[in-house]
Amino acid sequence: MPTFAPKPLTRAAASILGAAGAPDDIAGSVARWLVNANLSGHPSHGIIRLSQYLDQIEAGAYRPAERPKLLAESGATVLLEGGGAFGHLAAEELTVRLVEKSRASRVAIGGIVRCNHIGRLGEWSELAVSMGAIFLMIAGGPGMMRTAPFGGREGRMSTNPISFGAPGGSEDPLILDFATTAAAEGKIRVARDKNAQIPPGQILDNQGRPSTNPHDLYDDGVMLPFGGHKGYGLMLMAEILASNLVGDTLLPTPHHAIGTFALAIDPNALGAGAGFAAMTDAMIRRVTSSAPAEGFSEVLIPGDVERRSRQALQTAGVDLPDATWNAVLTAAASVGLPPAAVNAQAAGEAGS
Amino acid sequence: MPTFAPKPLTRAAASILGAAGAPDDIAGSVARWLVNANLSGHPSHGIIRLSQYLDQIEAGAYRPAERPKLLAESGATVLLEGGGAFGHLAAEELTVRLVEKSRASRVAIGGIVRCNHIGRLGEWSELAVSMGAIFLMIAGGPGMMRTAPFGGREGRMSTNPISFGAPGGSEDPLILDFATTAAAEGKIRVARDKNAQIPPGQILDNQGRPSTNPHDLYDDGVMLPFGGHKGYGLMLMAEILASNLVGDTLLPTPHHAIGTFALAIDPNALGAGAGFAAMTDAMIRRVTSSAPAEGFSEVLIPGDVERRSRQALQTAGVDLPDATWNAVLTAAASVGLPPAAVNAQAAGEAGS
Repeated sequence: MPTFAPKPLTRAAASILGAAGAPDDIAGSVARWLVNANLSGHPSHGIIRLSQYLDQIEAGAYRPAERPKLLAESGATVLLEGGGAFGHLAAEELTVRLVEKSRASRVAIGGIVRCNHIGRLGEWSELAVSMGAIFLMIAGGPGMMRTAPFGGREGRMSTNPISFGAPGGSEDPLILDFATTAAAEGKIRVARDKNAQIPPGQILDNQGRPSTNPHDLYDDGVMLPFGGHKGYGLMLMAEILASNLVGDTLLPTPHHAIGTFALAIDPNALGAGAGFAAMTDAMIRRVTSSAPAEGFSEVLIPGDVERRSRQALQTAGVDLPDATWNAVLTAAASVGLPPAAVNAQAAGEAGS
Repeated sequence: MPTFAPKPLTRAAASILGAAGAPDDIAGSVARWLVNANLSGHPSHGIIRLSQYLDQIEAGAYRPAERPKLLAESGATVLLEGGGAFGHLAAEELTVRLVEKSRASRVAIGGIVRCNHIGRLGEWSELAVSMGAIFLMIAGGPGMMRTAPFGGREGRMSTNPISFGAPGGSEDPLILDFATTAAAEGKIRVARDKNAQIPPGQILDNQGRPSTNPHDLYDDGVMLPFGGHKGYGLMLMAEILASNLVGDTLLPTPHHAIGTFALAIDPNALGAGAGFAAMTDAMIRRVTSSAPAEGFSEVLIPGDVERRSRQALQTAGVDLPDATWNAVLTAAASVGLPPAAVNAQAAGEAGS
């Protein structure tokens, strides 16, 4: 399993994206977002996606030089079309536009139609919070329907993730980012490959019975929403906002049925002023100062795990499984970059 | 256990509130909201509260003729002060103002500071949806801190409920309303009084160990957020929006530290037009048509349970435990209404 320092890995990823047709600024940004997902401890949204994106470029679904289009806007709303552009670009533009709007209008909402994969939702909450806003982003719609509704046994819903971010004052910001399924499909896949059991509450078998055997998911089983009927309700809310409100499937030629919704709020929207940050700091200190429960060593806030991972991996480097890196090298070769050159650049060798 | 038809029970409750000093319109509205909570299957927010409200009037915390005040507003925001008014009045006014604003501004947010008990949050989502809006309402803040953060063992958070509503087209609307704790404290109390066990994941004992013995909560135990770290994150989000953003505790004399936040969105805000209702109907049909899982007979959407309860109890009447009704009669007597008169009015007897 090779290990790479983040900067040369980012440069290597950018070179591959550039060779695939992305202009320098787009190649650099997408590479940075992918590596940041690895650094944040979410490799499922990181460099592993590079070969998939190159396949999509080859297939014509991604057009690497394209940029998102502004379809409509009002004082407090923005509607973007992702089109063939990298989804990350549309997510970044939506985030920046909504935060800027919210400074004047206090609150702003928007969405993206026909959008490619936008990466880790927490990335955009982190961006909005760094610009000073409270932010909510939701992706959802009738896409990969492998999740049963509460009380049901047939796959009728997608993973519909929700991310929320809020700035602290002197404390680190709170960054929430989770799928409304009980578990990520990738984790159930890992358990299957290890022949391990999974915790109860994550899947049903093909007879609609609760199961802790991960193989049951891949034998026509279904995933479950987290938190019973409450998580199911949030999963429906996510689809209503990200798909029905944004109107993704209303387009003459819908790209796919997963849309993106976001909401930005100025922390001073209702007049709390500097009190917002002070109260958020006090809240964070109040909860993190609780004595730990059995089996825990401390209380964290959402976002801490990713922050710590980034700190640790900036120095330790990003480990990539051989299969992931070999797929990257194969993809690079397909756009004319020889493996030796990619390896040298990712290893940070002089002259590369 | 007496059973009352909803209309005479509402008239009797209104008479009591009137005798306690509420003008006719306020007495009638509050009585209707309380009975509607009973009809909806949530007696914890219903007529049982009447004696508590009369105690609060006696204590001077509730001023039954007072109405909420508009503290500030902008094109897309509203800030109300509940003051001594029934909290329901402030919640209704916030809901109506935000929905009306959202018709022009597409999205609107607002809050209530110094607010008395607002009843069942779903009531306000139902109202907003009946006016055609998508609606989110959250109550939260550092009030009754009996819930431990995820990974902690000390009570540092409140139950921070979240309600969301969206209109369907020909389908019934989706109305979500839940506490971000794993269970309502009232249900754990009922289990304690029956010496029954509770499901795992609801409480920790006073040593921070998971417990299914409800007595442990009342021996310095704590409640837990629903859905592990995800529900904990939403509980924090609720406090950030309902308390920190609304700025409740910034007031010179904070009434208490639970604030209320709401968001109204025009379903056409991003241009989905009539497609919003069509897509929501299609989503509802898609999920409810799933075959049921083991142990279930059908798939419901959030709001169905309350709608069915209202339908059934409109005819069957509202059962009230003797203790609840006796407390109402005692409260009524304290404002000069003899039990016989209250009983006759609640029973719908002619001339009463």
